[in-house]
Amino acid sequence: MRYLITFSYDGSKFNGYQKQPNKNTIQDKLEEALTEINHKPVLVSATGRTDAGVHAYNQKAHFDLDFDIEESSLKKALNSLVGDYIYIKEVMKVDNTYHARFDCKEKTYTYKINTGEYNPIEADYVYQYGKSLDISKMQEAIKYLEGEHNFKSFTKSDDVKDSYVRNIFYTNIRCEADYILITFTGNGFMRYMVRNMVGTLIEVGEGKRNPKDIKDILKSADRRKAGKTAPACGLYLIDVK
Amino acid sequence: MRYLITFSYDGSKFNGYQKQPNKNTIQDKLEEALTEINHKPVLVSATGRTDAGVHAYNQKAHFDLDFDIEESSLKKALNSLVGDYIYIKEVMKVDNTYHARFDCKEKTYTYKINTGEYNPIEADYVYQYGKSLDISKMQEAIKYLEGEHNFKSFTKSDDVKDSYVRNIFYTNIRCEADYILITFTGNGFMRYMVRNMVGTLIEVGEGKRNPKDIKDILKSADRRKAGKTAPACGLYLIDVK
Repeated sequence: MRYLITFSYDGSKFNGYQKQPNKNTIQDKLEEALTEINHKPVLVSATGRTDAGVHAYNQKAHFDLDFDIEESSLKKALNSLVGDYIYIKEVMKVDNTYHARFDCKEKTYTYKINTGEYNPIEADYVYQYGKSLDISKMQEAIKYLEGEHNFKSFTKSDDVKDSYVRNIFYTNIRCEADYILITFTGNGFMRYMVRNMVGTLIEVGEGKRNPKDIKDILKSADRRKAGKTAPACGLYLIDVK
Repeated sequence: MRYLITFSYDGSKFNGYQKQPNKNTIQDKLEEALTEINHKPVLVSATGRTDAGVHAYNQKAHFDLDFDIEESSLKKALNSLVGDYIYIKEVMKVDNTYHARFDCKEKTYTYKINTGEYNPIEADYVYQYGKSLDISKMQEAIKYLEGEHNFKSFTKSDDVKDSYVRNIFYTNIRCEADYILITFTGNGFMRYMVRNMVGTLIEVGEGKRNPKDIKDILKSADRRKAGKTAPACGLYLIDVK
């Protein structure tokens, strides 16, 4: 029986999503809980990993169990085993050809920046940038990231891929008091891609780059042309379709 | 030279405010940092302690250094030493008769409750109550706590005090989407007092008690008459005067 779960987690409490020997990761936590329920090892396949410190709402993953269990019972059992910092919001039985990663068509990420005074209570949840930024320039710049492009300039420099082409369907930058929230929806995001785009947008907001520079950075396909990687703590995987 | 600091901290990262042998407390962190600056031990006196897991914005404390240092330089030096989860917002030179605890006239606490779906990203910051509450009944009940009363029923049961009389100047309960924020301003709060008042108000909101029961609970001066202690994670010391 194949099951699909929708879950949220506090990335600051784990060493990333992906299983690692002797590390406290989200995948480890889920697999330990499911193995206890299944009495045999269970492998969990998420739509993708998130790096250490990155948070998620509505992440999705599938796995197979040896038996048929009611969705609500499995949800309850899982939540009693995964601890306070992961929460399974939904369990759904799916066809056994379903694959969380391959069937993932769209992801939305939001990045949170505090331009106001340092807040120690949000240190792990919002990038404490602490200076004002020119939002209108950032809003102009982010539009150049929309559409289908080769995003090699914005990926982790040593990641080798068959294709660096991704399609960003939607972007948005909005302010709430001292906070800036930057949202990207696309068909896929490579490692560090959102954080590198945000780091580059911050440099636009600082006046160190022009909004139009984004076009040249994309064209160069060279990681060194883009800005710094923004810290993991501000990043949230918001939704997966 | 006596200095007064205003500071904030994430209580979930420490074993409470007050110094303890071999424990990671906020007072320890501040004293370690100041001792490094002063080259001799420094004792920090706050307006009061907060329990493990309780957060603070605008907590205040005083201490003496052997030398005169500019306020902005001391702020910078302290913030470079106390780590990510404490932040010194202000440093002020004060008269050496000033005492943070004795000169404290008013404190404000806010308690945060999530009545909606469990949110693992807020597990340490908002009480994940997860059910709806009758706010209007809670609003009726909280009014009985305003004014000067003997609050013995709401203190830690084994705390012996000369007087359990305190004055609550102002209370407020407001809703923001699924969140309930309960605020108390008063001339002083004993140990567990806010959390016990909140726990009792929740039982009113659940329909287990009548708003008017608060009067009888106060009169009884008996801890067993009040409700459960609400979890520390939802509590914020907001301001001190």
